[in-house]
Amino acid sequence: MAFKATGWYWEEFQIGHVQDSEERVITKDDVDAFARLSEDTNPLHLDEEYAKEGPFGKLVAHGMLILSATTGLTCRTGRFRGTTLAFVNLTSRFIRPVYFGDRIRCRMKVSDKKEDPKRPGQGLVMFDVRIRNQDDELIAQSDWTLLMKRKPAGA
Amino acid sequence: MAFKATGWYWEEFQIGHVQDSEERVITKDDVDAFARLSEDTNPLHLDEEYAKEGPFGKLVAHGMLILSATTGLTCRTGRFRGTTLAFVNLTSRFIRPVYFGDRIRCRMKVSDKKEDPKRPGQGLVMFDVRIRNQDDELIAQSDWTLLMKRKPAGA
Repeated sequence: MAFKATGWYWEEFQIGHVQDSEERVITKDDVDAFARLSEDTNPLHLDEEYAKEGPFGKLVAHGMLILSATTGLTCRTGRFRGTTLAFVNLTSRFIRPVYFGDRIRCRMKVSDKKEDPKRPGQGLVMFDVRIRNQDDELIAQSDWTLLMKRKPAGA
Repeated sequence: MAFKATGWYWEEFQIGHVQDSEERVITKDDVDAFARLSEDTNPLHLDEEYAKEGPFGKLVAHGMLILSATTGLTCRTGRFRGTTLAFVNLTSRFIRPVYFGDRIRCRMKVSDKKEDPKRPGQGLVMFDVRIRNQDDELIAQSDWTLLMKRKPAGA
């Protein structure tokens, strides 16, 4: 395989370990691109006049765009590069809106991990993922279960 | 407001009501666009040679793309047009992979609903969302809580 795994294996994730991501700005272009790709054309995200009368008073990003961008932020940490096998489970509470131009970042904490006796080369790692904006306000709290590779002999 | 709400209000969602979506094909272009937008560049979705050696034997779509596309499919039903206020809560189990060219669709069932005594113009509706592929295999099971408008007087 030409691709080199540089992320962490299951063994390397310790319960309680905390990883902070970099930041990312969420722009109007991101929201428009997400609306096109997802086909979620809710006017809360696209129609300024409509949004003005709505619960947030202005346009907001799709919650699913924020979660999606968060997966990208966690990729950037390098911890998952070539060692993640699958996204198994996800929960998310959307707590505050994200407005255009807001900067988001996340902190991932390893909340649990489990061996899989049926699959000796794999293991589950659970993360508590907290997404915050530039004012340090909590945007969303999310729990992720990822299937990770175990360390191959000699790695 | 120029925009006309044509979706269902909180009162119109009945527990047990089932709504089937149309279908959508998930393409390599969708996956590439999602990788660019989310910045989730996991090689499971992008590197054919790498994916061949992986758990699925070929490239698979991002789980978050599938969830995102599902929000679009539910938009297309028309039930949420101009009456949805916010995505409040989400859980999802990713059960099977989606390969390029697969057709996905979903069935949403109203699993519960709640008034919000503090916000008389709004109410919560909970949905059990099941995403299936063209072979009727369950791809993901997801629970969504949406904040919906209540019917205005005279509507």
